[in-house]
Amino acid sequence: MTNFASDNVTGVSPEIMDALVSANNDHATMSYGADRWTDSLSSKVAEIFETDVTVFPVISGTAANVLPISSLTPAYGSIYCHKEAHINVDECGASEFYTGGAKLVPLAGDHGKFSVTALENAIFGRGVPRHAQPALVSLTQTTEAGTLYQPEEIAAITEVARKNDLKVHMDGARFANAVVGTGCSAADLTWRSGVDVLSFGATKNGAMGAELVVFFGTPNVKELENRRVRGGHFISKMRFLSAQLAAYLDNDLWRRNAQQANDMAQRMTNFLSNIPKIEFIHPVEANILFMTMPKGMVVALKEAGFEFYEMLPGEERSLVRLVMSFNSKQSDVDRFAEIAKQYRA
Amino acid sequence: MTNFASDNVTGVSPEIMDALVSANNDHATMSYGADRWTDSLSSKVAEIFETDVTVFPVISGTAANVLPISSLTPAYGSIYCHKEAHINVDECGASEFYTGGAKLVPLAGDHGKFSVTALENAIFGRGVPRHAQPALVSLTQTTEAGTLYQPEEIAAITEVARKNDLKVHMDGARFANAVVGTGCSAADLTWRSGVDVLSFGATKNGAMGAELVVFFGTPNVKELENRRVRGGHFISKMRFLSAQLAAYLDNDLWRRNAQQANDMAQRMTNFLSNIPKIEFIHPVEANILFMTMPKGMVVALKEAGFEFYEMLPGEERSLVRLVMSFNSKQSDVDRFAEIAKQYRA
Amino acid sequence: MTNFASDNVTGVSPEIMDALVSANNDHATMSYGADRWTDSLSSKVAEIFETDVTVFPVISGTAANVLPISSLTPAYGSIYCHKEAHINVDECGASEFYTGGAKLVPLAGDHGKFSVTALENAIFGRGVPRHAQPALVSLTQTTEAGTLYQPEEIAAITEVARKNDLKVHMDGARFANAVVGTGCSAADLTWRSGVDVLSFGATKNGAMGAELVVFFGTPNVKELENRRVRGGHFISKMRFLSAQLAAYLDNDLWRRNAQQANDMAQRMTNFLSNIPKIEFIHPVEANILFMTMPKGMVVALKEAGFEFYEMLPGEERSLVRLVMSFNSKQSDVDRFAEIAKQYRA
Amino acid sequence: MTNFASDNVTGVSPEIMDALVSANNDHATMSYGADRWTDSLSSKVAEIFETDVTVFPVISGTAANVLPISSLTPAYGSIYCHKEAHINVDECGASEFYTGGAKLVPLAGDHGKFSVTALENAIFGRGVPRHAQPALVSLTQTTEAGTLYQPEEIAAITEVARKNDLKVHMDGARFANAVVGTGCSAADLTWRSGVDVLSFGATKNGAMGAELVVFFGTPNVKELENRRVRGGHFISKMRFLSAQLAAYLDNDLWRRNAQQANDMAQRMTNFLSNIPKIEFIHPVEANILFMTMPKGMVVALKEAGFEFYEMLPGEERSLVRLVMSFNSKQSDVDRFAEIAKQYRA
Repeated sequence: MTNFASDNVTGVSPEIMDALVSANNDHATMSYGADRWTDSLSSKVAEIFETDVTVFPVISGTAANVLPISSLTPAYGSIYCHKEAHINVDECGASEFYTGGAKLVPLAGDHGKFSVTALENAIFGRGVPRHAQPALVSLTQTTEAGTLYQPEEIAAITEVARKNDLKVHMDGARFANAVVGTGCSAADLTWRSGVDVLSFGATKNGAMGAELVVFFGTPNVKELENRRVRGGHFISKMRFLSAQLAAYLDNDLWRRNAQQANDMAQRMTNFLSNIPKIEFIHPVEANILFMTMPKGMVVALKEAGFEFYEMLPGEERSLVRLVMSFNSKQSDVDRFAEIAKQYRA
Repeated sequence: MTNFASDNVTGVSPEIMDALVSANNDHATMSYGADRWTDSLSSKVAEIFETDVTVFPVISGTAANVLPISSLTPAYGSIYCHKEAHINVDECGASEFYTGGAKLVPLAGDHGKFSVTALENAIFGRGVPRHAQPALVSLTQTTEAGTLYQPEEIAAITEVARKNDLKVHMDGARFANAVVGTGCSAADLTWRSGVDVLSFGATKNGAMGAELVVFFGTPNVKELENRRVRGGHFISKMRFLSAQLAAYLDNDLWRRNAQQANDMAQRMTNFLSNIPKIEFIHPVEANILFMTMPKGMVVALKEAGFEFYEMLPGEERSLVRLVMSFNSKQSDVDRFAEIAKQYRA
Repeated sequence: MTNFASDNVTGVSPEIMDALVSANNDHATMSYGADRWTDSLSSKVAEIFETDVTVFPVISGTAANVLPISSLTPAYGSIYCHKEAHINVDECGASEFYTGGAKLVPLAGDHGKFSVTALENAIFGRGVPRHAQPALVSLTQTTEAGTLYQPEEIAAITEVARKNDLKVHMDGARFANAVVGTGCSAADLTWRSGVDVLSFGATKNGAMGAELVVFFGTPNVKELENRRVRGGHFISKMRFLSAQLAAYLDNDLWRRNAQQANDMAQRMTNFLSNIPKIEFIHPVEANILFMTMPKGMVVALKEAGFEFYEMLPGEERSLVRLVMSFNSKQSDVDRFAEIAKQYRA
Repeated sequence: MTNFASDNVTGVSPEIMDALVSANNDHATMSYGADRWTDSLSSKVAEIFETDVTVFPVISGTAANVLPISSLTPAYGSIYCHKEAHINVDECGASEFYTGGAKLVPLAGDHGKFSVTALENAIFGRGVPRHAQPALVSLTQTTEAGTLYQPEEIAAITEVARKNDLKVHMDGARFANAVVGTGCSAADLTWRSGVDVLSFGATKNGAMGAELVVFFGTPNVKELENRRVRGGHFISKMRFLSAQLAAYLDNDLWRRNAQQANDMAQRMTNFLSNIPKIEFIHPVEANILFMTMPKGMVVALKEAGFEFYEMLPGEERSLVRLVMSFNSKQSDVDRFAEIAKQYRA
């Protein structure tokens, strides 16, 4: 089976698995983050982002989102995000839960991105007791549609946020793919464009299960630590979380893994865009492809051993999502494309 | 350094690390638990507990507690537990958070155990709108004091629970040590004694980070699944969680690891109880020792490279906790005891 | 000053004030609802609604909404309502708070009403752990736009709700105006059309501060009672709440008051719709009028002593809301209309 | 029937009922507190307390407690209060709910009062992520036992609070009785002794349903306003709430009413303490009496038309509570005492 269903179906990058084995051979450590892997994280991240940071390793993407979101949003606050954002659709109300009942205000927008205007029109109620209070904007980068915000788009959004006294969170479950896809620096895509806190994903890009909350500026560390425990996200053998993240950040592994995923996505796109029966739905800017194809082509590809999501199965045509990963192989891409090309209705 | 500070400072049991490496070499899998390791868990657990079970793998002990607790306790409910219980003292209000504001009613009792009478006296307010409603009893086994409830003690407590229409949760972060320590079956210590749900720990006993919620009877699975996502505890690459747990349950690893920890605790106890300057605070029934010793002895042991907790540092004597683990070595125990024995004020 | 700003700027209906004075002269009572006024409520309501009911008197419209909503919606649930609904916009996230973090899904629709199709398109995620679970539909009757759902419109919506296993709540802060405006029975507008629970307003229609939660069918009374205390909405001298409601329901006061408000709204509409400079925004079906008028006309009317809301003040024209109440006077309506008519740009 | 069951079974003080009638005759007002009664409150309170205050009128004692408590306590905070405090026992977890899951730490202590030592011993965990964070002390004055804290007792407690960076809340549902009972000024019993915020009760002392949150110092007004809406406690026709409170504060009505209640309690105590079969449980310092008496005496008094609570009914003797109110009559007290005196086993 070749699995293009998601970048979370993949296993662990060898470098990261090695780091786990190696961390297990070191006995001079304590629990709950009093270990040298955890200690090393903030300086590694500071180097990559070219600024001081405060970091919190956590185990899941949802945890990496809700920890900062709940720290920056009062229970009576409003959170503005794209209507298809993971925090709005795929976390079963985690942000509502962790904030104590904040309101997610869904914004429309093509290709997974909301516009400055959509945001401006939605901000509402400041200072009026009966309205939820504007608190936070959350951007997703890479978006759920596999597209990217350019730094100037981010800056335009964060400018509206500043004017309205909102904090800015970036859900970067696929942040590495965005860095590679835009060709911009990690700094340009975040704090230099006005982002306050980033959920920097590693799991989808080669870790076993590790994400990093990265604060630019000065968060309320004590409060975040209490919230982390309270959520059940303060991991006792934290060194194994931090060892994954350290290996991910070392030697540009995060970039190299994302490069491979994006390259394979581009290669696949190049092939498939020449097949008239396939119609792309969103621009392919990172490692995810959305397209419609004939139902028969779906069947043929699945019979050939490819696993992928039919987002909207149809009788004639289906909406299909392919996700390329750090370990997607060129030969699998080529074979997929060949089968699609050979398909006759 | 030899570390007796906690059983969570240890690394990963070799069998479990091997299972992680091995799971990474298998590519025919999907995310979020649609994998063969997760599939295998309930039958493994059913065999050990001699009954049907519903299981939920999670990443932390707090998650393993709050997932079932919040499923069984309404927001306006009362939870009865020992005043030193982990859920009351060491999870920063996680149970209050996940339930939406339930009330933890702390019960007193010697050696980490509360009595039937303490429970009966605390139950209060059923059917009266202005009082929180009795909902759940939570027992800790092995207790925070390192002691054990015998099956008949559990049964006496659960009988009070049944009469008062309360559910019964067991925090079994060190459940394996309790099975070994009591010499009873897993079934006798849980459902046969009236326990509804167990948080079955693995992390402190050799896993990297994995705990298993074990429901006896028929939980509201859908609700629990939603709560798990919402808490950020639905792990995408769940096979690596389940692979740890599968290896833990296979070939009696969970028992063997606990046996080693308990044996070392017993060996240490035998040595230290002959040293007049040391006074034990609680009976040593599993893998944890509490004692007071002269401050100078603490210093001597730390200088010799032993790490452990001074729970209450004093000028003359300190309250000390030692925790033995699956990988505690006989030679280290002997050396610790020898230094203690040699100590002259 | 003549105040058309809202129906909650008015005072108390004389019959209701008399009832309060009278209730104060009766000393044979107990607190917390053990009094004859509270006892009498359910039979009075049952007669009006032609079915058995369970009722809970509360002090505010928000309380009357969140008490049933939080009883029918799990913390991980979705609530579908019009995007302009009071529960979505004007209660500062009360429904999110009382449910423990449920998600309000805003539905679009003209004139304050959402369509069956809008609802069907929004329902989403049943049985999938990562999605919030569809739980409740909330209709507002009279809508925020002053319009009305006809029984067949309600029935079409509740049919979708039933198919999707959703409960149906009606925010009836102005329910009396809807009964009068549609000419339908209270039963036809609620349980006969599939509504499970009604927030039956009295405050805007002549009470001092009293609303009634009316359950058709069999609610979880114990749970609701606990939630009511917990919210701070269990009023000790409840007889004064119930005495208001009893007087409101007696002798058709609720209908007579609403009739006066609706009649005045219709009279005002008849006059103003003949003034070319005024453009109505929504059909006037109950006691609220929305219109745009020249800014100068707004100024002239305010100078003449009329108080009302400019919802969207503009340089040339403003969006204006007028609300008629149980004690709006024909002479004031006529004078308002005359000034508007005389206005020259 | 003469009702000594509670001070909330009474009706409304005539001065307050008159104020309600009068407020209804004034039409030049707006909703939600934009009225002259609400405007007048803070200056009236400032005069009584001899300092600047910020006030929030609410409808219930629970609301008056949870509004400030939730503003001063984070979700991960600890609240220290007497184990019999209303917020711990009689509000069905309202403080846990409004804070988003804070932990109430119950303190023991005779006669409804906790000691400085009990508080000091309970404070715990500051700065440690796994422990709930000390946040607030809540004192009840008049206590649930009908006793009073003297200013120096309050000051000793608030000194501990200050040292530990805790805020201090006073539940003053019967604050007027405490002022009269101690003979101290309102200032001495609150801010001069270190209290940050007072829930100043009126309902039990003659109002229909009105309590006042009184902040000394500078609260986060905006946040409190949002929380008040969100709890359903922002009353539209607020003038009727404020008119009650204004009348309560005017002409010393609050003191006069409390004086009558306390005087009757003292008169009753003087009589009953001479009856050997009656044993007082707590000192009578305000308007509440706790005593045990023979079961037959209870029966005789109830047969004579007196209503009161048997807190702990017994076969031989019962624990009985009597509460005197602003409208308790001397003749009723005398008759009660006479029947008790005449009782022969």
